Amino acid sequence: MNDLLLKSVRPWGDESVDLLIRDGRIAAMAPHLTAEGVEVIDGKGHIALPGLVDAHTHLDKSLLGWPWYRNEVGAQLLDKIDNERQVRQALGLDAQVQSMRHALRSLAFGTTLIRSHVDIDTEQGLKALEGVIETRRRLCEVLDIELVAFPQSGVMRRPGTIELLDRALALGADLLGGLDPCAIDRDPKGQLDVLFELAEKHGKGIDLHLHETGELGAFSMALIFERIRAHGMQGQVSISHAFCLGAPDWQRTQALIDECAELGVTILTTAPASREVPAIQRLIAAGVPIGVGNDGVRDTWGPYGNADMLERAKLLGLRNNLRRDDEIELALGLCSYRGARAIGHESRRLKVGERADLFLATGETVAETVVTHAPRALVISHGRVVARNGEALLPTP
Amino acid sequence: MNDLLLKSVRPWGDESVDLLIRDGRIAAMAPHLTAEGVEVIDGKGHIALPGLVDAHTHLDKSLLGWPWYRNEVGAQLLDKIDNERQVRQALGLDAQVQSMRHALRSLAFGTTLIRSHVDIDTEQGLKALEGVIETRRRLCEVLDIELVAFPQSGVMRRPGTIELLDRALALGADLLGGLDPCAIDRDPKGQLDVLFELAEKHGKGIDLHLHETGELGAFSMALIFERIRAHGMQGQVSISHAFCLGAPDWQRTQALIDECAELGVTILTTAPASREVPAIQRLIAAGVPIGVGNDGVRDTWGPYGNADMLERAKLLGLRNNLRRDDEIELALGLCSYRGARAIGHESRRLKVGERADLFLATGETVAETVVTHAPRALVISHGRVVARNGEALLPTP
Ligand SMILES: [Zn+2]
Ligand SMILES: [Zn+2]
Repeated sequence: MNDLLLKSVRPWGDESVDLLIRDGRIAAMAPHLTAEGVEVIDGKGHIALPGLVDAHTHLDKSLLGWPWYRNEVGAQLLDKIDNERQVRQALGLDAQVQSMRHALRSLAFGTTLIRSHVDIDTEQGLKALEGVIETRRRLCEVLDIELVAFPQSGVMRRPGTIELLDRALALGADLLGGLDPCAIDRDPKGQLDVLFELAEKHGKGIDLHLHETGELGAFSMALIFERIRAHGMQGQVSISHAFCLGAPDWQRTQALIDECAELGVTILTTAPASREVPAIQRLIAAGVPIGVGNDGVRDTWGPYGNADMLERAKLLGLRNNLRRDDEIELALGLCSYRGARAIGHESRRLKVGERADLFLATGETVAETVVTHAPRALVISHGRVVARNGEALLPTP
Repeated sequence: MNDLLLKSVRPWGDESVDLLIRDGRIAAMAPHLTAEGVEVIDGKGHIALPGLVDAHTHLDKSLLGWPWYRNEVGAQLLDKIDNERQVRQALGLDAQVQSMRHALRSLAFGTTLIRSHVDIDTEQGLKALEGVIETRRRLCEVLDIELVAFPQSGVMRRPGTIELLDRALALGADLLGGLDPCAIDRDPKGQLDVLFELAEKHGKGIDLHLHETGELGAFSMALIFERIRAHGMQGQVSISHAFCLGAPDWQRTQALIDECAELGVTILTTAPASREVPAIQRLIAAGVPIGVGNDGVRDTWGPYGNADMLERAKLLGLRNNLRRDDEIELALGLCSYRGARAIGHESRRLKVGERADLFLATGETVAETVVTHAPRALVISHGRVVARNGEALLPTP
């Protein structure tokens, strides 16, 4: 049995209680609980927070475990895309190993649900996807991993990609990805038509990278909206980044935001400091579901990502100028239970009956745990202890 | 004697050498150095980096050492200013104690030079300044602290402030501060005239907070430029924040940037993610001196600041989209030796003859030390060991 009695923790910073965990769920939550024949862990008054949710990352891309990658890449998106394919081949990266390293680091930080894009292209075919699916299989008892078949190198500009995406969805990818139908593929109608048809064929959702800014992004978004209506895919489409929703023309962006809300389009953001970004409080006011992600972790795109969604909550707060405690708690909610709901998963708040996905954080208040993002004292996922003092208990390859 | 032989360190990530430190300066730097009767420290192959420089902070405002401050402050600048005066009084904050806590934390992170604003207002008079001057006195052998007499609550709107600023400069403040001559004082001509006259009277430089954005900020900046010429204060004025230099109108901002270069105006930035900011690569291209600061550390303005200039280099990199290793090293340079020069201090690169202000960082490359900003293994300031493993060796009140 994996039952556990976790004594003396402060759920979301509230008064100290004990948590009884049975069959991966929170069975009871009250002061002075007792239970026969159950492992007892002393939470020592730590704040307990719900499992973190990384709603946008790339498990197959990380260079974790390799020597430092000296980044000398050009400034354009296509420079980075081409460079990555070359480095991947030169190093002989194994997506199974890399995704395991990345996933275990996420788990050590308290993340219990990940939506990951995985590159599908005509050079490596489905190899990366197969590797990440194997990692998912090995970790299925402790980490939820949802996979997006992601044509990073383009769809229309690389013939044969569509067929690979079709096979990826059959193989086990949960969603269909895409990116920048204008800027990368130069054929927005062509790309979006074929992606929506493929998603409908498999009955699966869509998660599109949209880096295009300003009017170009707004144009692509309008084409996406059209197809959501035509295919009846309301509530099944996410748009990642969506920089065009951060453009300064208030009226223009408000119309797009309202249409996201109407069509149940989830917006996924990493809150980058250097780009236009959708303002989270504005999206919330309009009723748009929001998830947050770390995006790449130590890959050829950049060195900053470290898989910590608690630090990401801080960066989300910094980007959106959230200074009040209640605002910082909102940022943390988006990086955890609210993010889970936004990508169509069971919420995992710290409530009786809900899943026992949680971690013990260091700090006097919830806001302090976010701003300091110290190593997690303990991580429990699916009712099991999976990490202590910042280190995953499973062996890292 | 405070002489030291530091064995096996990699200055700025280069090949391993030994460093001989005599009388607070680097006397020799080569492999296999020996020295008689000198304390020897094994650097264990760590990267050695030059002492960090926090060119804009507020030593008197920090709430370090106090219970978590629950932030419920309003959104406007004046809300935050008024709230701070109330909290300061309600808690009975002692600026000497608070500045010592803040300064020692900075030192533990490897900062060896600080420019700090200190509030001067008609409620507390010179009390905060006296406290921070005492901290400076106590730390003078290990930390350079430069003080700006800062009228946080305004100048013209609070009669009596000018007289206090006059006394502050006589008492030991190194520079005269000011803020938002339009937005706060509603009398830009009045405020700037009186500040420049006072600075000239004392023969001291000026460092102005300028939060005003867009055309308003550009207007205030033009008034500042006029007075720099009129008073012959070229090379003696800094503008902190200077958000108006991040406004989207390229031609408009380029003219302002070029005039900063012409007049030797130093721009000090914290690279906030949520605001328009001057782009550092653009300022460098124009020849504008740049310093970087943490601004407030755990004060009533916001909870994020932590006094770590190595993390600040990361935030500067994130804000300016610096992904390449050479770009990240540039960010670190601005947060250390280039920042020192920009505020008129001796550069402290790791070179023979220069000051022995340095720290040992954890990482394979310089860029990795920035993105991970792990606790500093060792900090040497003015030739003395002042911190180990992230903790200052001097007692914290
Ligand atoms: Zn991505
Ligand atoms: Zn300031």
